[in-house]
Amino acid sequence: VRVLTAKRGKPVAARRVSGASAARDAAEQPRLVIESVSPQVDGGAFPAKRTVGEAVEVEAVLFGDGHEQLAAQLRWRAIDEKDWQVARMDERGNDRWTAAIQLERIGRHEFLVDGWLDRFGGFQRDFTKKRDAGVAQKVDMQEGRNLVEQASRRCKGDLRRRLADYVKRIDKAGEEEAGDLLLDPGLSLLMDEADERPFQVTSPPRMLESERLQARFSSWYELFPRSQTDDPERHGTFDDVIARLPQIRAMGFDTLYFPPIHPIGRKHRKGSTNTLTPAPDDPGSPYAIGSDEGGHKSIHPELGSLEDFRRLLDESRRHGMEIALDFAIQCAPDHPWLNEHPDWFDWRPDGTIKYAENPPKKYQDIVNVDFYKPESIPGLWVELRDVVLFWIEQGVKTFRVDNPHTKPFPFWEWMIGDIRAVHPDVIFLSEAFTRPAVMYRLGKIGFSQSYTYFTWRNTKQELTEYFTELTQTEVSEFFRPHLFVNTPDINPTFLHHSGRPGFQIRAALAGTLSGLFGVYSGFELCEAQPVPGKEEYWQSEKYEVKPRDWQAPGNIVEDITLLNRLRRAFPALQSHLGLTFYNAWNDQILCYGKRAPGSDELILVAVSLDPHNPQEADFEVPLWEWGIGDDGSIAVEDLVADRRFSWTGKVQHMQLTPDRPYAIWRLTPAPEAA
Amino acid sequence: VRVLTAKRGKPVAARRVSGASAARDAAEQPRLVIESVSPQVDGGAFPAKRTVGEAVEVEAVLFGDGHEQLAAQLRWRAIDEKDWQVARMDERGNDRWTAAIQLERIGRHEFLVDGWLDRFGGFQRDFTKKRDAGVAQKVDMQEGRNLVEQASRRCKGDLRRRLADYVKRIDKAGEEEAGDLLLDPGLSLLMDEADERPFQVTSPPRMLESERLQARFSSWYELFPRSQTDDPERHGTFDDVIARLPQIRAMGFDTLYFPPIHPIGRKHRKGSTNTLTPAPDDPGSPYAIGSDEGGHKSIHPELGSLEDFRRLLDESRRHGMEIALDFAIQCAPDHPWLNEHPDWFDWRPDGTIKYAENPPKKYQDIVNVDFYKPESIPGLWVELRDVVLFWIEQGVKTFRVDNPHTKPFPFWEWMIGDIRAVHPDVIFLSEAFTRPAVMYRLGKIGFSQSYTYFTWRNTKQELTEYFTELTQTEVSEFFRPHLFVNTPDINPTFLHHSGRPGFQIRAALAGTLSGLFGVYSGFELCEAQPVPGKEEYWQSEKYEVKPRDWQAPGNIVEDITLLNRLRRAFPALQSHLGLTFYNAWNDQILCYGKRAPGSDELILVAVSLDPHNPQEADFEVPLWEWGIGDDGSIAVEDLVADRRFSWTGKVQHMQLTPDRPYAIWRLTPAPEAA
Repeated sequence: VRVLTAKRGKPVAARRVSGASAARDAAEQPRLVIESVSPQVDGGAFPAKRTVGEAVEVEAVLFGDGHEQLAAQLRWRAIDEKDWQVARMDERGNDRWTAAIQLERIGRHEFLVDGWLDRFGGFQRDFTKKRDAGVAQKVDMQEGRNLVEQASRRCKGDLRRRLADYVKRIDKAGEEEAGDLLLDPGLSLLMDEADERPFQVTSPPRMLESERLQARFSSWYELFPRSQTDDPERHGTFDDVIARLPQIRAMGFDTLYFPPIHPIGRKHRKGSTNTLTPAPDDPGSPYAIGSDEGGHKSIHPELGSLEDFRRLLDESRRHGMEIALDFAIQCAPDHPWLNEHPDWFDWRPDGTIKYAENPPKKYQDIVNVDFYKPESIPGLWVELRDVVLFWIEQGVKTFRVDNPHTKPFPFWEWMIGDIRAVHPDVIFLSEAFTRPAVMYRLGKIGFSQSYTYFTWRNTKQELTEYFTELTQTEVSEFFRPHLFVNTPDINPTFLHHSGRPGFQIRAALAGTLSGLFGVYSGFELCEAQPVPGKEEYWQSEKYEVKPRDWQAPGNIVEDITLLNRLRRAFPALQSHLGLTFYNAWNDQILCYGKRAPGSDELILVAVSLDPHNPQEADFEVPLWEWGIGDDGSIAVEDLVADRRFSWTGKVQHMQLTPDRPYAIWRLTPAPEAA
Repeated sequence: VRVLTAKRGKPVAARRVSGASAARDAAEQPRLVIESVSPQVDGGAFPAKRTVGEAVEVEAVLFGDGHEQLAAQLRWRAIDEKDWQVARMDERGNDRWTAAIQLERIGRHEFLVDGWLDRFGGFQRDFTKKRDAGVAQKVDMQEGRNLVEQASRRCKGDLRRRLADYVKRIDKAGEEEAGDLLLDPGLSLLMDEADERPFQVTSPPRMLESERLQARFSSWYELFPRSQTDDPERHGTFDDVIARLPQIRAMGFDTLYFPPIHPIGRKHRKGSTNTLTPAPDDPGSPYAIGSDEGGHKSIHPELGSLEDFRRLLDESRRHGMEIALDFAIQCAPDHPWLNEHPDWFDWRPDGTIKYAENPPKKYQDIVNVDFYKPESIPGLWVELRDVVLFWIEQGVKTFRVDNPHTKPFPFWEWMIGDIRAVHPDVIFLSEAFTRPAVMYRLGKIGFSQSYTYFTWRNTKQELTEYFTELTQTEVSEFFRPHLFVNTPDINPTFLHHSGRPGFQIRAALAGTLSGLFGVYSGFELCEAQPVPGKEEYWQSEKYEVKPRDWQAPGNIVEDITLLNRLRRAFPALQSHLGLTFYNAWNDQILCYGKRAPGSDELILVAVSLDPHNPQEADFEVPLWEWGIGDDGSIAVEDLVADRRFSWTGKVQHMQLTPDRPYAIWRLTPAPEAA
């Protein structure tokens, strides 16, 4: 005989059950339940990200015991508004209720959901059923009438009078007419107004961050202003950058991003290709910020003056572009802060300061501040915030933040929140390459956009898994992936030997998989020579002035221009969301569709992942998404070749060649061509 | 030129950034982050369910900025313990930390996770790396030495002395020896003891409900005591039930469950097959509780006395079985409460009370109490709790609760919590058949087990999807599925025309898919005659005394006995968890494996879903789970045919016939037979 109770220790048992007052308290607990209110991040701890102009679909699960009729409403407001906007929610089955918020303002919003027992609505529902079935009795009607009478007694003034009037009319009427009166829409409105909303329950508030469009859709071009020269001996200037603006804008970019533009330290300055023995005229890394010429609020004199910089901002705006600056919290050993605020730094027992590392990278030319020395609080925190404010006052609205994962999360949460409370149109891009939990945390606490693992995701499986995680999980609510195809720090292995087709492949992926697409200059010229065995560029521009021939043969300017044109033309390409992967029966061909919310138009993309050989595949056209049968037809526009035709049948065939290793089609259900 | 900012409304903007004190507050915010502490239910609002004797693996994500070394510990205790038990957690990569709790007591437990910056551990990690690479400098050692000195100064007594002693020895030693001392395990222990645990952060507490084994593993047999007779004219008694105990125990059941055993109302009593016109000697439905013979604390006189019932409890225990009672909160119109507490009920304007409904079912012979009338609070709530207490005092430890979804959630949360605080070994089974959110809520607020949609899940896809939801999502933490193959209320459509093979199929599924398996008597005799077009039994036992021939030919007693024997023998079958579905290339054959935590043994089950035809299929043996190659071998024990052999190769073939439409194999990696 089996032993029924595993006796491993005395049970956790109290001596007495509770008294009447505990039961009374229990009866005061909410009878109805609201669960799973979305969008939400970490149970409401952080805002979900959206952009202004979007409709935000809110969903909640609301239920109670029994079979009674419930009602729900959505309330929302911008956080500087006093009054809530209110919308009734619709039930969509299985206790799910929905309504939508149309975001009209940039900035923080909040919303919540109320639910309550809808007694009169429930009466009308049941009474209608019984009437239709011919089983309504006089007592059913009497119950409805009593609800109206009770409501009237609860109310005052006009509402009381009008409800009482209904009661009188019901009492005088015959059975049929009285039933009609009880279902009268006018009475429903009055009863709703008079409703005391029994058992009302309210969800905790949830937050939404409504940002400007560029938070999810922008096309970045990164350059070193000092390299905008045709002579390595002549340091480029902001005026040289102004001269290049038309060319960059012609490629379709809307954001021009510079590594730090501040004075470069002289102590421990680096030489060409990251050497520790610079020549006397080596310009040094712009990430080694600060010298006796100034720190984070100053401009490197060889680039120009603050006046020149403001002119550049104006000229960029004139071309429909904006400037993004680099916010890098680090100092060259001769940064003025080391003299002015030595207590912000950690001095070693031998009187030196440890140089910075981001393993395996070593930065011998920079030192880091310590956010948690007593002397740093709040002086350092406030000073860093004021650095950002200073550049905002010059007209900069977008900041790429260098290595944010090596600075405290509470600093970013406070600093970004503080800035965005006053300047909600400011965008911060997180340049963190580290473990997923840390990358995602930075998104939650305020960064609008984030660098990603994209440059290390090359195979069909890798790309599918990564972009499924970014678009199909809760991550999609707070982490916007900015897909840089390369950076001054990342010369991707895939490109070292791929030749021109590899650059087309990576540009096509980045330009269509996310609304945020970034190119570091040189990519369009298919530059890829590495420091052997590393992801570093040979003779990296980080350490030298690097003039380029922007018309060099073999460039992919045409591809980039095309991609950016399509990105501007089709809303489906202006977000990483709305992504679905489709079957293509070839592991070297990735096939996916992008769809804007509520749109009937699908942008279908196929990219060969093989830069060396032609690849072909049968692939599935998702006719089912339009309710079209497997043998039906769909109108197709080839957006690369600019041709229109139609496909008949769910399975089609494609060929991609190293010459043009990607295809982009626009599919619409109406047959536009045959 | 594209407009850069969508100007749809004034941005949500404050006038000023914050002052120094806000920055100071920010610096006080936790620097480290603990996320995703599991197990958890709704962010800690409800306990995760386990049974005593289980090891609970706790996982948390812990991280901070930068690359510093962290440490984490798990703390847990039963809620009546003052001191925490503590275990250091191990890092498993990507910031995931784990440790386990061994549950030794029945009852409520709580746990939480602490994380902190491990400065000295980090020093040792970095110093070891540098030493190994031959780049350690004197200043590195000096920093470690200073950490020890600072720790010594912070401490008192013996610890201070012993740390100071290390400092002296380091200062006197040569470079090599000083390095060894800094990495000395003895010093590590002292430094850990002296650690002030900078930046310590603590997760919110999470709850665990440790129940007795029967909460997840028990085999129920349901019968109507009054039908334990060989003569429809003679009402069965508790003594008749005692006489049947050996037979029921021989089938392997350990829990014997009765519909309500209380006096049955006479007003509006139902007749045979749910008619409203009973014959004078019709016994009525036991769910119509209460008459002038008593209410919820009384026993129907024809069944016996309270003394008889206690004897039955004793006899059951002697057979290694327990009795489960039905807790049905409803009254026949002649229940004593209607006189004693008329204010607990809702009277209609015509002086009647609405009878109960659970659409589409109508219960004209019962009325419901109203939990929220002012007169019901707290009298009704306390009285209902006391009804349960009364039966616990008689020796009952398991309650099947009728229709809990039509009574308020706060009532159940309070009542079950109150009972289990004093009697933590009491088990409540929720008989709710309603929408998923409501079913799951009842699990969250305290029910140990729940009825399910199993009786309506018949196809391979339906079963796979449902059991994936129950075992692979958060649902697995709080909802234990009790798989009844039939109930007095559910005569499953699948069985109406399946014949005997259908009963074998459903028994095999229920008996192997969950640790909780239930049979309502008559099932083993393959009874299936329905009220035409309904899931009701014809001449339902709910309304009449129903003698049976327990040896009737064509019964499946042998199958049920086998299933219950295997369930007792193999821990893998004592839970719904540990389930994996495998490929069988035939939509009529469902193939799955069950594995107990940490076990090397897999119970592999194949069930034909076709009661009419033989079915065969190639199927995949999951050799990969033992790291065996696709061509490798595995030892197999056929638990149905009692044969041992081995399979070589990942793909095998099976045939299942209506004669025995299921197979159960035990797979172990050691070749036990060839």
